Amino acid sequence: MTNTLLILPGDGIGPEVMAEVTRIIDWFGARRGLRFDVTEDLVGGAAYDVHGVPLADATMAKAQEVDAVLLGAVGGPKYDALDFSVKPERGLLRLRKEMDLFANLRPAQCFDALADFSSLKREVVAGLDIMIVRELTSGVYFGEPRGIFEENGERVGINTQRYTESEIDRVARAAFELARKRGNKVCSMEKANVMESGILWREVVQKVHDESYADVELSHMYADAGGMQLCRWPKQFDVIVTDNLFGDLLSDVAAMLTGSLGMLPSASLGAPMANGRPKALYEPVHGSAPDIAGQGKANPCACVLSFAMALRYSFDQGDEATRLERAVEKVLADGVRTADLMQAEGAKPVTTTGMGDAILAALDAS
Amino acid sequence: MTNTLLILPGDGIGPEVMAEVTRIIDWFGARRGLRFDVTEDLVGGAAYDVHGVPLADATMAKAQEVDAVLLGAVGGPKYDALDFSVKPERGLLRLRKEMDLFANLRPAQCFDALADFSSLKREVVAGLDIMIVRELTSGVYFGEPRGIFEENGERVGINTQRYTESEIDRVARAAFELARKRGNKVCSMEKANVMESGILWREVVQKVHDESYADVELSHMYADAGGMQLCRWPKQFDVIVTDNLFGDLLSDVAAMLTGSLGMLPSASLGAPMANGRPKALYEPVHGSAPDIAGQGKANPCACVLSFAMALRYSFDQGDEATRLERAVEKVLADGVRTADLMQAEGAKPVTTTGMGDAILAALDAS
Ligand SMILES: CC(C)[C@H](C(=O)O)[C@@H](O)C(=O)O
Ligand SMILES: CC(C)[C@H](C(=O)O)[C@@H](O)C(=O)O
Repeated sequence: MTNTLLILPGDGIGPEVMAEVTRIIDWFGARRGLRFDVTEDLVGGAAYDVHGVPLADATMAKAQEVDAVLLGAVGGPKYDALDFSVKPERGLLRLRKEMDLFANLRPAQCFDALADFSSLKREVVAGLDIMIVRELTSGVYFGEPRGIFEENGERVGINTQRYTESEIDRVARAAFELARKRGNKVCSMEKANVMESGILWREVVQKVHDESYADVELSHMYADAGGMQLCRWPKQFDVIVTDNLFGDLLSDVAAMLTGSLGMLPSASLGAPMANGRPKALYEPVHGSAPDIAGQGKANPCACVLSFAMALRYSFDQGDEATRLERAVEKVLADGVRTADLMQAEGAKPVTTTGMGDAILAALDAS
Repeated sequence: MTNTLLILPGDGIGPEVMAEVTRIIDWFGARRGLRFDVTEDLVGGAAYDVHGVPLADATMAKAQEVDAVLLGAVGGPKYDALDFSVKPERGLLRLRKEMDLFANLRPAQCFDALADFSSLKREVVAGLDIMIVRELTSGVYFGEPRGIFEENGERVGINTQRYTESEIDRVARAAFELARKRGNKVCSMEKANVMESGILWREVVQKVHDESYADVELSHMYADAGGMQLCRWPKQFDVIVTDNLFGDLLSDVAAMLTGSLGMLPSASLGAPMANGRPKALYEPVHGSAPDIAGQGKANPCACVLSFAMALRYSFDQGDEATRLERAVEKVLADGVRTADLMQAEGAKPVTTTGMGDAILAALDAS
């Protein structure tokens, strides 16, 4: 079976961090006999500059064919004034929607060597390991009607939150499956006290649980209380499942809590393709960070760990994924630090490439 | 001019904490010549038990007439199985909507004596003083169409996010006015990168700023980044203005950060009435806490401080509001603690009533 990858470095620090991932992909080919057929293409502002759209149709078609898409980051001030329909983000949203990547996996993990970076007390975050499963293809991100309309002599901005039973069902299953491989606990978050879409959400998650996953511990929480509890005592959670918009906010809050923002990967998974592998896109949680782009300051770890998630979820190479994750942990434990991580005493400052070198050396030694 | 108050203790710990506020209201009458004409009535589950609805029409009418409504809390497990339309929360939402209380002021303030309660590091939260202005009468909380419908053989849950220019305009003005009396800085939060309602929000806030409040520093942030920044370094903010749903989440996150959750009040303000005073409702940020209700464990401070906000915003008694706030701070500094605050060494444990006694004694000494 061939392993096909589409690499979309995107904007800002995207290309720099992706360059390190490319070296790591090559390492797995040369040293572990795990070869990837890699294509590279444009997304976001980089695609707009060339094609006038943030994702060309040919790129979209290619993304549908490969085993996994690896994306760097999109966006930047250069594109702020663009029309909504061609903004860099629309390229990413089109990939998510057309590949039907309904389950967005966002681990919020606190790396021990970095626990002191958190604004939270060490005991609150050390050892933290949450998996947020965010619905990614529906809800208010894509619901119709949407737009800015004229009404009674003034404009009104409208978006529609919409969830069907089957959309909730499939993401709930994804969350329960993951929980079984972890702490066996799922907390579902919505605003069923004020939104009917939340009532349906709660009901369907409960039904999926009762019918197929009764062995998993399930709780429900209002999303505002969920945000509070994440800040108060995040270790109470194992898997959190929530909708697209709440997931956007809550996963960012959870990511920031860990103090490891520059370290956090994500996977967006869809239905299985003909070869049994799921449609999949992997990307770091951090953004394009235009302020530090091109200066060798970016931390490539989140993007590297996104590739580790690809090894695990797309290529069924859990052991190799763990090998790569251990290599990154080792490098951190050794005090190797890109600029975003530079605070501790005795740290060894490195550039983006220096971090790549260190990870490769740790892989060699693995 | 008479001062009229409608007191709605509600459910759970609501009645207990409100009992302490009532004593403080009486103190202002007896000792400061500031008399209030007080009526008491039912809301939430308490109203449902008697009237079969969480807010009787007569109570609604009364709320429209008084200078200020003071609410304890609504909700409890006893009412969980009720139909959406008569849940305790609907009583509160009806008050907000029919009184047109569009500006919800949620101070997120860290009391120095309590800074160590925060899950965040002391230096991150000590001295924190943010004002979140949440739009409270529109957005996805009230937008139509809404409900659970049958479509293509399955159910779909729908809610509608809607904001008109004038709705955004008036809450933006409220935020800028407040900023002028504080740090002169407003940060507006939305998801203009994915929602058209967010694009309109950003545009109108900017326009109000440029036309009428150019002296106030204005910035815009995506709501997910806003959640992150609140956790990372909350002191960067002065006033935050945001919509109903984002405000629900972000203000709860901000409240939890302070470590002072049992201490935080809120004010919900509408347009001026004939006597020049704004339509107004004041309530603590905490909920009805059914698990500790009736045990004398509840902390009345948030409700007491909500009355202080009423003194300031409804009755133009800023000095008396400050007097009451200072009394609460004094009591905290003296180590007086209800059960929710019991952790520090040398603390003096008190019941709900004991906290009321201590605040009254501090007022006597003021
Ligand atoms: C870039 C943006 C469109 C995106 C989102 O809102 O989903 C981002 O915040 C994310 O969480 O991946
Ligand atoms: C009780 C509930 C309806 C309410 C809300 O969602 O607005 C609460 O969370 C709040 O923030 O006041």
